Amino acid sequence: MRGIIDLNCDMGEGFGHWTLGEAADEDLMELISSANIAAGFHAGDPSTIDRVVKLAQQHGVGIGAHPGYRDLQGFGRRYIRTNSEELVNDILYQVGAIREFGRRYGVQLQHIKPHGALYMEAAVNEELSQHLVDTLSKTCGDAILFCMDISKTYEIARRMGQRVVREFYADRDYDDSGSIVFARQVARPDPQAIADKCLRACKEGLVRTVTGNDIKIEFESICFHSDTPGALENGRAIRKALLDNGITIAPAATVLENMA
Amino acid sequence: MRGIIDLNCDMGEGFGHWTLGEAADEDLMELISSANIAAGFHAGDPSTIDRVVKLAQQHGVGIGAHPGYRDLQGFGRRYIRTNSEELVNDILYQVGAIREFGRRYGVQLQHIKPHGALYMEAAVNEELSQHLVDTLSKTCGDAILFCMDISKTYEIARRMGQRVVREFYADRDYDDSGSIVFARQVARPDPQAIADKCLRACKEGLVRTVTGNDIKIEFESICFHSDTPGALENGRAIRKALLDNGITIAPAATVLENMA
Amino acid sequence: MRGIIDLNCDMGEGFGHWTLGEAADEDLMELISSANIAAGFHAGDPSTIDRVVKLAQQHGVGIGAHPGYRDLQGFGRRYIRTNSEELVNDILYQVGAIREFGRRYGVQLQHIKPHGALYMEAAVNEELSQHLVDTLSKTCGDAILFCMDISKTYEIARRMGQRVVREFYADRDYDDSGSIVFARQVARPDPQAIADKCLRACKEGLVRTVTGNDIKIEFESICFHSDTPGALENGRAIRKALLDNGITIAPAATVLENMA
Amino acid sequence: MRGIIDLNCDMGEGFGHWTLGEAADEDLMELISSANIAAGFHAGDPSTIDRVVKLAQQHGVGIGAHPGYRDLQGFGRRYIRTNSEELVNDILYQVGAIREFGRRYGVQLQHIKPHGALYMEAAVNEELSQHLVDTLSKTCGDAILFCMDISKTYEIARRMGQRVVREFYADRDYDDSGSIVFARQVARPDPQAIADKCLRACKEGLVRTVTGNDIKIEFESICFHSDTPGALENGRAIRKALLDNGITIAPAATVLENMA
Repeated sequence: MRGIIDLNCDMGEGFGHWTLGEAADEDLMELISSANIAAGFHAGDPSTIDRVVKLAQQHGVGIGAHPGYRDLQGFGRRYIRTNSEELVNDILYQVGAIREFGRRYGVQLQHIKPHGALYMEAAVNEELSQHLVDTLSKTCGDAILFCMDISKTYEIARRMGQRVVREFYADRDYDDSGSIVFARQVARPDPQAIADKCLRACKEGLVRTVTGNDIKIEFESICFHSDTPGALENGRAIRKALLDNGITIAPAATVLENMA
Repeated sequence: MRGIIDLNCDMGEGFGHWTLGEAADEDLMELISSANIAAGFHAGDPSTIDRVVKLAQQHGVGIGAHPGYRDLQGFGRRYIRTNSEELVNDILYQVGAIREFGRRYGVQLQHIKPHGALYMEAAVNEELSQHLVDTLSKTCGDAILFCMDISKTYEIARRMGQRVVREFYADRDYDDSGSIVFARQVARPDPQAIADKCLRACKEGLVRTVTGNDIKIEFESICFHSDTPGALENGRAIRKALLDNGITIAPAATVLENMA
Repeated sequence: MRGIIDLNCDMGEGFGHWTLGEAADEDLMELISSANIAAGFHAGDPSTIDRVVKLAQQHGVGIGAHPGYRDLQGFGRRYIRTNSEELVNDILYQVGAIREFGRRYGVQLQHIKPHGALYMEAAVNEELSQHLVDTLSKTCGDAILFCMDISKTYEIARRMGQRVVREFYADRDYDDSGSIVFARQVARPDPQAIADKCLRACKEGLVRTVTGNDIKIEFESICFHSDTPGALENGRAIRKALLDNGITIAPAATVLENMA
Repeated sequence: MRGIIDLNCDMGEGFGHWTLGEAADEDLMELISSANIAAGFHAGDPSTIDRVVKLAQQHGVGIGAHPGYRDLQGFGRRYIRTNSEELVNDILYQVGAIREFGRRYGVQLQHIKPHGALYMEAAVNEELSQHLVDTLSKTCGDAILFCMDISKTYEIARRMGQRVVREFYADRDYDDSGSIVFARQVARPDPQAIADKCLRACKEGLVRTVTGNDIKIEFESICFHSDTPGALENGRAIRKALLDNGITIAPAATVLENMA
């Protein structure tokens, strides 16, 4: 059983006058320990980034860059076929932008989590994961890469010595391989069921898959999505279940230090 | 008479498959000591930025962020009415992106030079210049702000103690107030005339205006534009004239250290 | 007193995964007779346009193009300084896009209403209004231009014989000149007060200004905004007040025919 | 042997201040009979579209919409994974925009040719081609769809009765299946070799593939690319070879009428 866990959520996913999801960043920020901040390509404009980074700093939440494909229309959920060099350059650009707002508020960049289709592509694309980890080792040696347990990204980051955190998905279904099941539209889940699922994963290291089997799962961070219906209730239920059961919620960097 | 001067040029002003101007960044980089690198809003994509920063590092050229209005269609030459907070956030975002590629190649960000209409707006907009200098003093205390001699930007940067460099425009005309005359289309100039103008400004501190008067001019860097017709010939003529007359060409940071 | 009036609203102001305002296009469409459809530059993507045009066709609502400045970040509410030729080309591009979806559903483009800062700029910029009306007379001879009563756009459209409709703003305040008072943030209004204001304008041709004076007002269409808080309640109250008082709500083209 | 053929080229592939390729649209327009005009998503801004449509009208060249993926950074040469509905909406939007500038200059939209990766995707994606042809049959019943001989697009357009034209690629290599060989960088070809290849294809209906075999080829239009090095020389050589051999060059619509 785990005594300490990170709780992360995507933040700042609006653009200009638009916001995403029913929950305000202000409310979600009180629940989490790491924020994945949309970095401008799939969502997120500089003034939104500024507001969210400041908010994270005020709450002691670890700030992370959440780079995506250059795809405002598709919210970064559409795969774009190109080479690894171009994608890693796109990622670096976005990472640097987020890091600069961290400088403004005196906080270090804690982590990097690719968004949407780029996250899923990196998980299966060995060349992309390799090139990404190689590059981050030069530019972000101290930053933590977020990824799935079952992924090329995790394999390569571990092998290369890049700090890495695996995520457990509170509001996504798992298949028997340990991958999450992609859903274009996510239904409004029961917050308590989500909280129970997270708690069991923490205590027993197990998750029930869509076929009804229990599989082992390893992770250092729990992710819930700000655009899942009922996001605020989901986050509150998860947080309460963890705290009520004596599990500490702390930024990913602290979790890694506790494990070392 | 000046014994040392910086020579700067805008770089990486393409986007994706498009390039700007007749001269290649590779050729221009051999001539200059500071590069203003387009940062993605008016021009410049991550892969272009990566290529140009690497090139600058190889040539010992100081790297600078060249942030502009979010205006690919208008190349950042169109004024957009908005508040200073939003503009400074846009600038920070772009500065961070350029700085990150500097990290990749082990070079520090030397300077920041707003582009086009944003540069001209900052020159006359006291609130914008004030907010920009305030912010840079926190995030980029060591970086040099490039601006015009006659500008709010210069006044405020000096007063606030931000490192600052004034530019002399090799390929733009001056009016009697010391401002440059805006031209939508710049004609192909005579490279030797440009070189002579720069040399005179360095030696005598004077420039002839469009009305035929000589006015005093102060500066620490000479700027020529990569999209002025004959840019490569212009740059070569300026460089030759300076070197032939015993004037050292060095990055802005070195010029400031020599003056201190 | 007016026996027939058009009721218009901005529609389809989302982009990709983002929507704007609390009211769904589906609900608002039941209330109005003319829809101003965001055309892609400040908001509106092709799939949203398709959905909204189809919806308008199903409800017998007149479809209009709602072209804006190329400014997704600023939602077209930021003035961009450029020449009239470029702006009219931007408008034509967007008009054509909307018209094409009209072809798909067998409906003609009824009207054109510039959005936000572009609407306000055209109102005071004689050259822009002149160039716009000249061009529309060739490409959209049959379409109706929406504008303010007190505007260059109205003056020039009338003089040139372009069909034109003046708007009354249900949820904006008027000053004594008959112009609307710009507000960055619009507070949640009282729906009944808005409805009463519209009814009085229809019956008496008067509106109370921010200074407490009554001024005369002429118009053929009432506009309420989908992103004003309480938009759905506002629209319903206006509609009810008009119908209860025997005023017919009909598309702008029908209103103009009734006046001829 | 063919007595009449269309000669088409991509046009207006700049964006804002950027232009593409070494040849000016003005020079290329004198050589061709059909222009594929970039429609804003991968290249092409409204003022460029306006200039190119006017130029085409002046030269009696058939105007065509050249819609691409929404991908300025990748110039529409990167495949984006999404559904057919979204892509056809993107295409309609761009078609409408081009058509509107045709209205301005009194010319009908002659044809539609998807660009780059979208053209290649439609060629192999039956659902996309089907949905595109279904939709064009409603909105553009009279317009001609350009495609490859060996493609789903051609099969479905023929079956559905949509007017269609097959292209022969002057400056691309063929493989034994009759498909063109994709090349990220195209080398500067010998204009005379290109002209000879076109002439042989017209006279004998044969083309030599990269493996040295001759295969049969059917087409109604010859395409050469404005961004292939030496585009102007290539176009002139093709035009001269055709005319010297008594082959008439005419817009695609005229070619189809002659075949009927």
